[in-house]
Amino acid sequence: MHIGVLGTGTVGRTLAQALVDRGHEVRMGARAAGNEKAVAWAQSGGPLASEGSFADAAAFGELVINATAGAASLDALEMAGAEQLAGKVLIDVANPLDFSQGMPPTLTVCNDDSLGERIQRAFGDLHVVKTLNTVTASVMVAPDSLAGTHTMFMCGNDADAKAQATILLEGFGWPSASILDLGDITAARGMEMYLPLWLRIYSAKGTAVVNVEVRALTA
Amino acid sequence: MHIGVLGTGTVGRTLAQALVDRGHEVRMGARAAGNEKAVAWAQSGGPLASEGSFADAAAFGELVINATAGAASLDALEMAGAEQLAGKVLIDVANPLDFSQGMPPTLTVCNDDSLGERIQRAFGDLHVVKTLNTVTASVMVAPDSLAGTHTMFMCGNDADAKAQATILLEGFGWPSASILDLGDITAARGMEMYLPLWLRIYSAKGTAVVNVEVRALTA
Repeated sequence: MHIGVLGTGTVGRTLAQALVDRGHEVRMGARAAGNEKAVAWAQSGGPLASEGSFADAAAFGELVINATAGAASLDALEMAGAEQLAGKVLIDVANPLDFSQGMPPTLTVCNDDSLGERIQRAFGDLHVVKTLNTVTASVMVAPDSLAGTHTMFMCGNDADAKAQATILLEGFGWPSASILDLGDITAARGMEMYLPLWLRIYSAKGTAVVNVEVRALTA
Repeated sequence: MHIGVLGTGTVGRTLAQALVDRGHEVRMGARAAGNEKAVAWAQSGGPLASEGSFADAAAFGELVINATAGAASLDALEMAGAEQLAGKVLIDVANPLDFSQGMPPTLTVCNDDSLGERIQRAFGDLHVVKTLNTVTASVMVAPDSLAGTHTMFMCGNDADAKAQATILLEGFGWPSASILDLGDITAARGMEMYLPLWLRIYSAKGTAVVNVEVRALTA
């Protein structure tokens, strides 16, 4: 599959490499083609790895992943261009964290709205699936780095898009029974508002390699 | 132990009865003594159960539990009175949910502040411990209603107060290894901002009897 990965940070590079390792052709996108980190990754990532602008990566991908910093995601997607994104699945793994006031970060949007919803509203014919934003990059692509089963949340308005995202998650090693569909894209509020708790769990446990397992009463 | 429980809703009544069942003397507080639900509980709750105003319950308790609706908690604590609360441990189990705009609820405070912090700021010599707000009432007092271990978060500025809260949680059946201290009271942001995710988990699982187990990489 051809996949565009928007973003050159740890999350973008980790996802891009994991996808290449699984046989996908991946183009990493940045504000402009020739981004230093994107070029370095494309050179080291093997023959399936390439790089370009956000628009290049979006046009290349049958499926696109938003791994940009959440506070900059809408700008990045504008640069990618509505025409390049039209009708595609966008897997949004970003968190709208605002570090401008120091630590701990706050969210640039929350409570009655979310980044996932904003992206969906801004690009009406994009099929936005929010997932993976609740774990650190290494856990995204290697859930077995944590003992036992643990939960990956997902939400979005389009069932087919969520089915595609599920296949991608299963490729990373997430058991289908661990993927919890929370419904439509408004569930992105909860998935993003979990971040402040995640940060405190990280701090309490002394490692970012953390996640939660949902337990529910079974009939 | 003498415990004051502020609030007459499901959470207040569930906690009050569980405490009486464990041999504590409990006074349930409402806006005024003689509240219908508080009287009904006091009559059915056995000889250790009594009721009164918020101030009565706060004065009675060596330890006080805030089980009022989060949006009304600061008013309720004002009515309880700073003198009645001074120097005591307050276990804050409330969530600042705003249902005024319909479902889903939003939070009346979040992101750069929290109800737990507001209470701590308003009553400087109260030792606020936030805990139990991330599970439904029945799970608070019977964690074994869910299979396996699962996590109870806690935060607060005072170590002795958290130790008292821990004893109370252990009395409800929470294993000490399942109680995760997230640090000072500012962690209440994350614990309260988890509610929108909790609501979607509840909806996806079809039961409020849900919780999460934190998994972390162990060295």
